[in-house]
Amino acid sequence: MNNFKVTISFDGSGYGGWQIQKNSYTVQQAVEDTLKKILGSRHRVTGCGRTDAGVHANGFVFSFRTESAIPPEGLFRALNSALPESIAVLGAERVPEDFSAQMSALAKRYIYKFSNTVRRSPFADRYALHYEYPLDDGAMDRAARLFTGRHDFTSFCASGAQNLTFERTIFDSRVSRSADDVVFSVTGNGFLYNMVRIMAGTLLYVSEGKICGGSIPDIIASKDRSRAGKTLPARGLYLDRVFYDREFLRQIPRDGPGEARQ
Amino acid sequence: MNNFKVTISFDGSGYGGWQIQKNSYTVQQAVEDTLKKILGSRHRVTGCGRTDAGVHANGFVFSFRTESAIPPEGLFRALNSALPESIAVLGAERVPEDFSAQMSALAKRYIYKFSNTVRRSPFADRYALHYEYPLDDGAMDRAARLFTGRHDFTSFCASGAQNLTFERTIFDSRVSRSADDVVFSVTGNGFLYNMVRIMAGTLLYVSEGKICGGSIPDIIASKDRSRAGKTLPARGLYLDRVFYDREFLRQIPRDGPGEARQ
Repeated sequence: MNNFKVTISFDGSGYGGWQIQKNSYTVQQAVEDTLKKILGSRHRVTGCGRTDAGVHANGFVFSFRTESAIPPEGLFRALNSALPESIAVLGAERVPEDFSAQMSALAKRYIYKFSNTVRRSPFADRYALHYEYPLDDGAMDRAARLFTGRHDFTSFCASGAQNLTFERTIFDSRVSRSADDVVFSVTGNGFLYNMVRIMAGTLLYVSEGKICGGSIPDIIASKDRSRAGKTLPARGLYLDRVFYDREFLRQIPRDGPGEARQ
Repeated sequence: MNNFKVTISFDGSGYGGWQIQKNSYTVQQAVEDTLKKILGSRHRVTGCGRTDAGVHANGFVFSFRTESAIPPEGLFRALNSALPESIAVLGAERVPEDFSAQMSALAKRYIYKFSNTVRRSPFADRYALHYEYPLDDGAMDRAARLFTGRHDFTSFCASGAQNLTFERTIFDSRVSRSADDVVFSVTGNGFLYNMVRIMAGTLLYVSEGKICGGSIPDIIASKDRSRAGKTLPARGLYLDRVFYDREFLRQIPRDGPGEARQ
């Protein structure tokens, strides 16, 4: 039995998220349909997590076991030529039997991208949230850093979520600007439903002066969703990277927006 | 009677080109439908030219006359909020009665964009032709410069085209690289059917060693379509800018690939 780890990037615009479901075509469905063409039989793949409809990925990871003796390079080539153009394979490797894209993940990094231009662009706006007034990325960055640490993030979770615990650890959280791209980058051991999009919406309110940046700790402590900002649209959100290596804390700092486009 | 000049950029992926036609939704259709919502009655707009299905635009221009007294800034705002997200308005201005987006155009600049990365990307590849092997942009540039001047471009026109003349003047033609983006930029007083895509395909053959760069003048002189390269896909092609000012020759040189994303 072989166990494979595959890293993909995808344009989530046309998909109903990662996980297979009845009423829309999902990335997992596209992957499993393609694997069936390549390997001849259906394989169930395990994703590193769920992503919502419309969310993009720079480095999503899935794993699957197979009796097939296909070499990793062959799998890489075959997947890359048979998958839809909206999904690209970045790497495929054989991993130990006990590896699971979901259970073995130590941390994930998400980014939320704002396109901060006066004129909207049909090209950039598909992959970012267009915002026409100047964003105060300095204030957003100072506020973003207050998300770090182990906290109960109830205030940053869509209401109605059924969780055993709302505690999550944020290892790194920051906002950077490169020309017209303003990027919120956040790395944690797990994320609640809509958590990054609500964090990003809160940072937008900080830029707009609707929320005081220094009040982030109070908003966290309140466990009150209504104290945080709005949930921003999926189009600006990317699962950027999944960390499986115990050395991951050293790899967390990002170089800035340029890295997002791989 | 007011005469308006409107500049737009659009993601051509989902459109059957600019011009209204029966069997697909076009950019002109989207513009006229939106103008009807804004102005209350249907207006026929004149485009600076036709673009094929799937071709993008950084700066397409159309003009139309109207009895409406809408101020240019109001038209700009209304169009930008009512048009589909795949079409953005860059500018709207009142122009003299005799201005026509088509007839008044002195020159047009097209660009053809290659995404020259080993791994394909679902984000970049929607807006460029992915090419995984290293492109020889130096050889492509030297060959591209041989397109300049007044020539019969029959060799670079899709066969079957009904033209009175195949003579066109190319004012500027060059290839530049910025990191992984290789861009062919060509400015002329007019272009034959598929001309830029065939020119780009010929430059690709030059990079691949299938055509000798120095033979461009011979290929032009042969008036033989089969001597030139293949017609490249629409996804890499952009109508970049239309020139109406008699001083346009001074504005032609481009700064490189970065300028394309406005």
